[in-house]
Amino acid sequence: MVTISIIGTGLIGTSLGMALRSANEKTSPLGAVTLVGYDHNKRASGDARGRLALDRVASSLEEAVRDAQIIVLATPVGVMHDLLQQIGNLVSAGAVVTDTASTKGEVTRWAREFLPTTADFVGGHPMAGKEQTGSAAADPDLFKEAIYCLTPSVHTRPHAMEAMEALVTAVGAKTYYIDPDEHDAYVAGVSHLPFLLSAALVDVTTGSSSWKEMAPLAASGFRDTSRLASGDPVMHRDICLTNAAALTRWINEMVESLTDVREQLEAGNANKIEELFVRAKQSRDAWLETRPNLRPGEDDFNHVAEIQRPNLFGRFGSRKK
Amino acid sequence: MVTISIIGTGLIGTSLGMALRSANEKTSPLGAVTLVGYDHNKRASGDARGRLALDRVASSLEEAVRDAQIIVLATPVGVMHDLLQQIGNLVSAGAVVTDTASTKGEVTRWAREFLPTTADFVGGHPMAGKEQTGSAAADPDLFKEAIYCLTPSVHTRPHAMEAMEALVTAVGAKTYYIDPDEHDAYVAGVSHLPFLLSAALVDVTTGSSSWKEMAPLAASGFRDTSRLASGDPVMHRDICLTNAAALTRWINEMVESLTDVREQLEAGNANKIEELFVRAKQSRDAWLETRPNLRPGEDDFNHVAEIQRPNLFGRFGSRKK
Repeated sequence: MVTISIIGTGLIGTSLGMALRSANEKTSPLGAVTLVGYDHNKRASGDARGRLALDRVASSLEEAVRDAQIIVLATPVGVMHDLLQQIGNLVSAGAVVTDTASTKGEVTRWAREFLPTTADFVGGHPMAGKEQTGSAAADPDLFKEAIYCLTPSVHTRPHAMEAMEALVTAVGAKTYYIDPDEHDAYVAGVSHLPFLLSAALVDVTTGSSSWKEMAPLAASGFRDTSRLASGDPVMHRDICLTNAAALTRWINEMVESLTDVREQLEAGNANKIEELFVRAKQSRDAWLETRPNLRPGEDDFNHVAEIQRPNLFGRFGSRKK
Repeated sequence: MVTISIIGTGLIGTSLGMALRSANEKTSPLGAVTLVGYDHNKRASGDARGRLALDRVASSLEEAVRDAQIIVLATPVGVMHDLLQQIGNLVSAGAVVTDTASTKGEVTRWAREFLPTTADFVGGHPMAGKEQTGSAAADPDLFKEAIYCLTPSVHTRPHAMEAMEALVTAVGAKTYYIDPDEHDAYVAGVSHLPFLLSAALVDVTTGSSSWKEMAPLAASGFRDTSRLASGDPVMHRDICLTNAAALTRWINEMVESLTDVREQLEAGNANKIEELFVRAKQSRDAWLETRPNLRPGEDDFNHVAEIQRPNLFGRFGSRKK
């Protein structure tokens, strides 16, 4: 029996708990699990328990963390610094600590600073989400077929790698190993920049003095392009702040591209404008065809299913306290 | 029996034909209709006929236009200038000419230049679409509950207004009267700017030397924000070129907004960034709550259903040659 602690029972933490509890313990590489949850907001952890995401709600952070073999920090990135500092003295020797934050560079540096060397930190980022927040929006299938980034270091011990691969597999996702700073540069382009464009689009249009007359003309194109703007503002604020350098580079590229289009519009340069639109269409259609979120050779990732559970958690369990 | 001619049997023309043919002729304000179609690409008009969008395919533009009481120009805006010039001498006295192009200012000026004063031009723009093109993607429900912009002038005769309202009602859409240039300024913000952002986003990300490693991390947020980039490049080129002035103003606002965020990121100004994201979320959520595409007081538009058909088309029919 593996004890997994989930700190923060919002959308991701609750969905993760639901996915882990609904996994078949006979075929899941984690085997039977006990899920303990904690949230500084007692109502949130109670809701997660009500949704069967947890076996038990801990009454303190210490109680949640001390017996766990796997500790999942599913809080917004904005509180991660303080949380890692708080649990630094609480985690058991041999414990595996992971997180689900959208940026990995800063979090990895904080983990190195605060966690004991007897524990292993493996940064995680499941590439799945919704614009709704909180346990009410949680879904045990949220991670099915999704890419789940893991950012181990060269010092990460094998049992920690295996535990994380087992967790990712148990929730139906696919592991994708990546360097924390590369991760941040890439998600800045495909995730944080789209959010920023969405928010800025809504802000400039709805801020117009003509918005009342414009609003009825806004149709599905506006709805989809602006969808991300309905996401949690505080979470996105912290994501942007912990990924400012990479995001700034993408903003610069975007401004350059828009300025370029503006010049071509002013010059009436039909060919250049068409070239851009053709290139964008072809690139997006090609991306869609390769099946989003699944990279070529994805079957390489499926070896995780072959892991021998008794070995993994026999050894793992023996390290406990 | 009203003869409606559809010139251009792509997504919109074919969907319009399917919607008109599937309308109940006993309750539709248009009553029984005959649909004649024409496309310079014979295969396209044949496909539309095959999808039951047309009763008959005309063998020439002249044949398509000469007996029609309502002529719908459903071609891309890029060919509208030449098309209006071509049909100028072909339309019957009393005919109502409309179009479905995404920009209305230029088209309205061309119609005034080329159409005889015995015919009425009422610009139209159904706020409905798909990123797929062609008759294969057509859908008789495409216009259901959608806003359908009409841009009549002060000179538009009453029978033309009534015919257009009847057509809009028959396809299940809602009329929205608007000045052509105001229309263009507004759709530049809620439709053409989102398209441009979508295309530029795809271009800067997929053009990166790291795209291969980034692609697996692109998830549903990227997919939705970039959806419009899969639209028809030539159609969007012509939309942007016929709406360059309005679009340029929106590009400037967008660049300013992005530059502003970049400065706040560099300064680590958490409050300002959060304010923007909160404002965008609230504005978008408010827009969603008012039911997109349906403006408050939408019931005001439903009076069209009370139009007396015999009066409308009795009078209308008597003008025919």
